[in-house]
Amino acid sequence: MPIMEIFSQGEEIVTGQTVDTNSAWLSERAVELGFTVSRHTAVGDKLGDLIALLKEIAQRADCCLCTGGLGPTSDDLTAEAVAAAFDLPLAFDEIAYRQIECYFGNRNRPMPATNRKQALLPQGAIRLDNDWGTAPGFAVRAGRCWFAFMPGVPSEMRGMFSERVKPLLSERFVLNPSRLITIKTLGIGESDIQQRLDGIELPEAVQLGFRAGIDEVQTKLLFPSDYPEEHMTTLTELVAARLDDFVFGIDGLSANTGNLAAVVDQLMRDAGKTLGVIETASQGLLAAKCPGATWLKSAAFERSLSALGLRFGVDVEENDLAASGVRLAKALQTQSSADFALVQLYAGSPAQFEDKDRTIILYNTLLTRDSLQQNRHDLGGPLGRKQNQAALLGLDLLRRHLQNRKI
Amino acid sequence: MPIMEIFSQGEEIVTGQTVDTNSAWLSERAVELGFTVSRHTAVGDKLGDLIALLKEIAQRADCCLCTGGLGPTSDDLTAEAVAAAFDLPLAFDEIAYRQIECYFGNRNRPMPATNRKQALLPQGAIRLDNDWGTAPGFAVRAGRCWFAFMPGVPSEMRGMFSERVKPLLSERFVLNPSRLITIKTLGIGESDIQQRLDGIELPEAVQLGFRAGIDEVQTKLLFPSDYPEEHMTTLTELVAARLDDFVFGIDGLSANTGNLAAVVDQLMRDAGKTLGVIETASQGLLAAKCPGATWLKSAAFERSLSALGLRFGVDVEENDLAASGVRLAKALQTQSSADFALVQLYAGSPAQFEDKDRTIILYNTLLTRDSLQQNRHDLGGPLGRKQNQAALLGLDLLRRHLQNRKI
Repeated sequence: MPIMEIFSQGEEIVTGQTVDTNSAWLSERAVELGFTVSRHTAVGDKLGDLIALLKEIAQRADCCLCTGGLGPTSDDLTAEAVAAAFDLPLAFDEIAYRQIECYFGNRNRPMPATNRKQALLPQGAIRLDNDWGTAPGFAVRAGRCWFAFMPGVPSEMRGMFSERVKPLLSERFVLNPSRLITIKTLGIGESDIQQRLDGIELPEAVQLGFRAGIDEVQTKLLFPSDYPEEHMTTLTELVAARLDDFVFGIDGLSANTGNLAAVVDQLMRDAGKTLGVIETASQGLLAAKCPGATWLKSAAFERSLSALGLRFGVDVEENDLAASGVRLAKALQTQSSADFALVQLYAGSPAQFEDKDRTIILYNTLLTRDSLQQNRHDLGGPLGRKQNQAALLGLDLLRRHLQNRKI
Repeated sequence: MPIMEIFSQGEEIVTGQTVDTNSAWLSERAVELGFTVSRHTAVGDKLGDLIALLKEIAQRADCCLCTGGLGPTSDDLTAEAVAAAFDLPLAFDEIAYRQIECYFGNRNRPMPATNRKQALLPQGAIRLDNDWGTAPGFAVRAGRCWFAFMPGVPSEMRGMFSERVKPLLSERFVLNPSRLITIKTLGIGESDIQQRLDGIELPEAVQLGFRAGIDEVQTKLLFPSDYPEEHMTTLTELVAARLDDFVFGIDGLSANTGNLAAVVDQLMRDAGKTLGVIETASQGLLAAKCPGATWLKSAAFERSLSALGLRFGVDVEENDLAASGVRLAKALQTQSSADFALVQLYAGSPAQFEDKDRTIILYNTLLTRDSLQQNRHDLGGPLGRKQNQAALLGLDLLRRHLQNRKI
């Protein structure tokens, strides 16, 4: 597969004033197209750094997508750097110039003299017309590498990539798009997953990867384009089976399932059921993860267990949270007239809750019209992680019930 | 000034699955400390690429902050790459091993065998203890460059940088830290801010910048290290005064105030007051933003206005949300026996709420023991933004009340 690098120019990026989102966006597109993205680099507005980097990349990569540094001001040096690095003197591009004039004309503004600079392109470059802003992009070949230079403004960059650069890439490279399949789990760690997958013989061509986020742990399988569909499915199902009931979704096989909240949202809509929730450790976060979900009728948070008992008119006992959960669930189901009542209680002092080195025990109770299910989990880590895990594990209990999985 | 590079490792970054926010965060800190950040680089999980990059940087930079690749799985190769690049064979670190055991012990989970790998550090490396997760970091000198390797998980990376790496940097480099002051506002846009600042003469040496985030808009003033403290304070106060009641916090002048929820948390603790909340548009997110805040007694969410009326036993009218808010606030204050009752209602259909091109009108009511205050805001943008803005504007009403600001 041809090797791709991504290059971002801008002082605001290297100084951290701006988070570079262009590189991630371009990389996703490049991988989809069948490039191997090997490196991202960002440098500031120093001509020497730019020239050095361009020369490096010209020797290392087959293709490079570049953003930024095409503006009208003195710190926009990309064209100048390309000219110097590859000995392609800047030439005035009449058409580019007229396009820039038009851009200002259309907005009834005079064109500032400084913008003339944007019509200077390296000798022999292909002009990339910019229908989304003033700065035209351009493409040049240097060494083994084909470079495309685009503006740094995300909206302009995305338009120019999709409309101008992508077609040129398909003409110039023999591409075999690869397939990424992502198996998404909750409640099982990266290393536990690795152990469960021990003994699965992966074909040489298939890449296995993992990513642990705050909301899910992902197991990723990257297949080459010529990999047979049925083998892809078989292998994915084999891996998913090892991860068993922890799997809440698989992206890339057929449709994408989205995050856990999206999966539960779909399941609840399909089931046509409604839900009422009592939150404690998650403190509103479970409800907050489902904005606009019409099946979520009500959510209640009370700081103290006794206040919760009073609010719902039932007896609650610190030392019997399982039974208290059932009583609260029944009262909630009646009062909210929802089909499902989900109650989360936890054992642990505020000090335990806030201490990242101590755990609390979460008790989940799910009462439906014809079933009562409970489970418990140890929650560790910082306050915010405990809160987030509590919200996710509540949603996952719903998911497991609706998918008839182990509770 | 010493030259700094930032290096991120991870296939998820070069393939664009994850936007690299660590580099921007670390760069900001490095610039504040007095480094010149010259380059960001990201590479994937290929040992060859890692080794090549480490060797490059060792010749180019005085210091390099690295994130990612310290996990337990087979695609976490950083330590191995450092060992190979700089001929520093991996050695088993007994203390690191025990810390990893403890991490699992504290969570009542057995330590998977694969995590042993994380206790292997390059010969002669300084271990960077990780109090925020399993993977210890480490620091080594190679060529002209001092490298610090940290985990890729942002929460772990930030903790380790602040507590472990920053002190070591100050020991090892002669730095003239510049001072960054950040004025944080809610409810006013970047261009409005710029207009309000028109006519303020900034000294040549002072850099002004802006950043619009989802939770706040930041106005940044960067002062050189030798800038007189009193002039810094005067200029900051001048800028803050122009932004008036929109300012909820200023970081960098004395202490950091943190985000809006942290500011409100401190104000509520100082005032010794308690709060009950009714959430609609924010759907639990207001309460969720204040985990462990003992002053927050209760939060209630109901999907329908009529259900809310039933729940609190008061009349509510779609066409008079201001009056309905007052009635609900009084009932809530009584039932929750909290000092403050905050009620959020909104006018708008579910369709309006979900449509990013349409707005809803948010009505905030704050009832205290001796005051009643209301305001309204138009909320636009995607569903998630409307939800988040509703939560923030509720907290900001509390902030304004407690600081005697304009409501």
